[in-house]
Amino acid sequence: MRIDATRLIEQLETLGNIGFEAEKGTSRPAYSQAFNQGRAYVQDLMTEAGLITSVDEVGNLVGVLGGKSGYKKISIGSHIDTVPWGGIYDGTLGVLAAIEVIRALKNEEYENKHPIEIIAFNEEEGNVIGGTFGSKAFVGAKLEDAMRAKMAEHQITLQNYRNSKRRAEDYHCYVELHIEQGGRLEKDKTDIGLVEGIVGIVRYKASVTGQANHAGSTPMDLRDDALTKTCEIIDDLMKTVVANSRTMVCTVGTLNVVPGVVNIIPGLTEFVIEMRDSQMESMEEVIAGLRDRWESQGLELEKIIDQPVTRCDKHLGQLLEDATESLGLSAQKIFSGAGHDLINMAMLTPSVLIFIPSKDGISHSIKEFSEKRDIANGTEVLLELVKKIDEED
Amino acid sequence: MRIDATRLIEQLETLGNIGFEAEKGTSRPAYSQAFNQGRAYVQDLMTEAGLITSVDEVGNLVGVLGGKSGYKKISIGSHIDTVPWGGIYDGTLGVLAAIEVIRALKNEEYENKHPIEIIAFNEEEGNVIGGTFGSKAFVGAKLEDAMRAKMAEHQITLQNYRNSKRRAEDYHCYVELHIEQGGRLEKDKTDIGLVEGIVGIVRYKASVTGQANHAGSTPMDLRDDALTKTCEIIDDLMKTVVANSRTMVCTVGTLNVVPGVVNIIPGLTEFVIEMRDSQMESMEEVIAGLRDRWESQGLELEKIIDQPVTRCDKHLGQLLEDATESLGLSAQKIFSGAGHDLINMAMLTPSVLIFIPSKDGISHSIKEFSEKRDIANGTEVLLELVKKIDEED
Repeated sequence: MRIDATRLIEQLETLGNIGFEAEKGTSRPAYSQAFNQGRAYVQDLMTEAGLITSVDEVGNLVGVLGGKSGYKKISIGSHIDTVPWGGIYDGTLGVLAAIEVIRALKNEEYENKHPIEIIAFNEEEGNVIGGTFGSKAFVGAKLEDAMRAKMAEHQITLQNYRNSKRRAEDYHCYVELHIEQGGRLEKDKTDIGLVEGIVGIVRYKASVTGQANHAGSTPMDLRDDALTKTCEIIDDLMKTVVANSRTMVCTVGTLNVVPGVVNIIPGLTEFVIEMRDSQMESMEEVIAGLRDRWESQGLELEKIIDQPVTRCDKHLGQLLEDATESLGLSAQKIFSGAGHDLINMAMLTPSVLIFIPSKDGISHSIKEFSEKRDIANGTEVLLELVKKIDEED
Repeated sequence: MRIDATRLIEQLETLGNIGFEAEKGTSRPAYSQAFNQGRAYVQDLMTEAGLITSVDEVGNLVGVLGGKSGYKKISIGSHIDTVPWGGIYDGTLGVLAAIEVIRALKNEEYENKHPIEIIAFNEEEGNVIGGTFGSKAFVGAKLEDAMRAKMAEHQITLQNYRNSKRRAEDYHCYVELHIEQGGRLEKDKTDIGLVEGIVGIVRYKASVTGQANHAGSTPMDLRDDALTKTCEIIDDLMKTVVANSRTMVCTVGTLNVVPGVVNIIPGLTEFVIEMRDSQMESMEEVIAGLRDRWESQGLELEKIIDQPVTRCDKHLGQLLEDATESLGLSAQKIFSGAGHDLINMAMLTPSVLIFIPSKDGISHSIKEFSEKRDIANGTEVLLELVKKIDEED
């Protein structure tokens, strides 16, 4: 091993303690005091590793290792904010492993041609302003309306957002190392996930209308119970998804019952259907079928999110596969079900994503865990990939 | 007709305007300013009709018409509080129709042997202290723990509660006229419901445990989705109830999804199952079956309410049937799915309940409505029944 996994894990744990609450987890949401403290710690690590650091106007931390004249930057990144009561690996692994890669390169006196930039994005989790806000600003993505109002609460202006945009012509590529946040690699006993892309997401705001009525005096045959119908609809939806696709996932994570009183028959339900897949059409087919079968029963559906599939760069994917092979690690191609800063970075420059296994597939939780062996493997792969990219031209 | 339905409906509307909010309904919850104003109006009507009125220490209004020496009281009552944004007939009909009966008796110079007492109960709806609080105090029912804390908020002491208790030996019987709050009589085109009793109620606090996880990166086959399971359980429950009973009703009126986030697979649901039937055993059988089938899938059930069936007095029921027949009205025996003050009064004295049709079975709503014809019929029946009771001995 060229990298020092013990040191890396110590640093993951040190960062994970910033914002940690016993038995609950680590809370380091964007723009919080804990976030600022965590970012200062990472900035110090970058400086110690010999990087020139800066923080942009939306809070992204960048550290640069110079290269030879005329070469574009290889950027390596992920995020260092967390969900409320999250874990210590999601995001932070990609940033701290990148710093470890720099230390390893320095240790072997590697002379990089390309400048290497490490990015610690802000507000990937989206609990404060909106998902992947930091990398959206970084690539100059269109600002969502919902984000504008929340920016003001944190004294971030539109000009700050615009000033954080980087130029595509400065970038050679983007590489991100991340925990899987799912159970596939662990279940298949695979060391490394070669991520081909990030699933598209559709979200539909759904409602089912019935007739609110007295729970005691309305016989079953005279009822139009919105919740009973909703249960049949969700049951139908889930069975349809499982029957029609091996890759699609579907979640109803919220459900509001109106009026929500124990002795009143529900007159209305409101919920959100979220679907993710590696292609958009299959999801729209499921929704169309659901609408056909249930519209006459009071189901209404309104699309509120339509995020297309992101595809990783094929050439970088091949270099990644070569890197894992040269290290003797098992690997499998996989699609990411979770969103990442790479969705934005892929609009700026060719990008590739690397996964390591997550214990029990759990993330966004104090139970989030990846084995030392897997962290070491992932970091070695990142090192090997960066060298392969740097050596190409 | 011996009663004046036009006058009665005018008074129902006048009372219904106290606490009325346009397009929402009438809000006259116990102990509110609107309630006090409404009660003062009813008290004036009682006084004008020649009753001696008083308000007890928990807020029940009573008006008494004296009788001959040695006779026990015939009491007629219902409640004059409403749910938030309720209708103008639920409860108030029984009180104002009773006053109309007194006026009719006086008009025909009827000489009642039994003293006749009209009771306008307070806080039947239970939005302030607890359901049928006023009649609970009236009969000296055991005070529920949950009520004690709320009594203090309204400066009602335990002594006030105790002082409101009446003596059983003073009562001959209790009669209540009420809207059906269901659609059975309207559907069957029946004038009068001869209520045999009030259903028993069981409520179970239910929870279903799954495993919260990332909605994107957890494949369908690795999920333990608490809401998906809950939908199957509620679907099973409702189908079982319909398949096994023609009288039982079952409602899930609240459902809480934890953590309740669109992109997290639900790890827990919490809901309340309410069942009502004219016998308790059938409901317990349904619950036992549900437990058997789903306990291993994370379903937990805890009984939180177990209210036995109330039976109306058979002899009074016969007199009621005779009264409807003598008036040439159609009638059917029916069980009340809703609770009433009669549940408590039946513990004090033989009691009987009379229903008139409710349009579309709607109550607790601005849409609550009963036809003038039905209001007139119900009041005539009440008059006839009171005379039959009074004449018996």
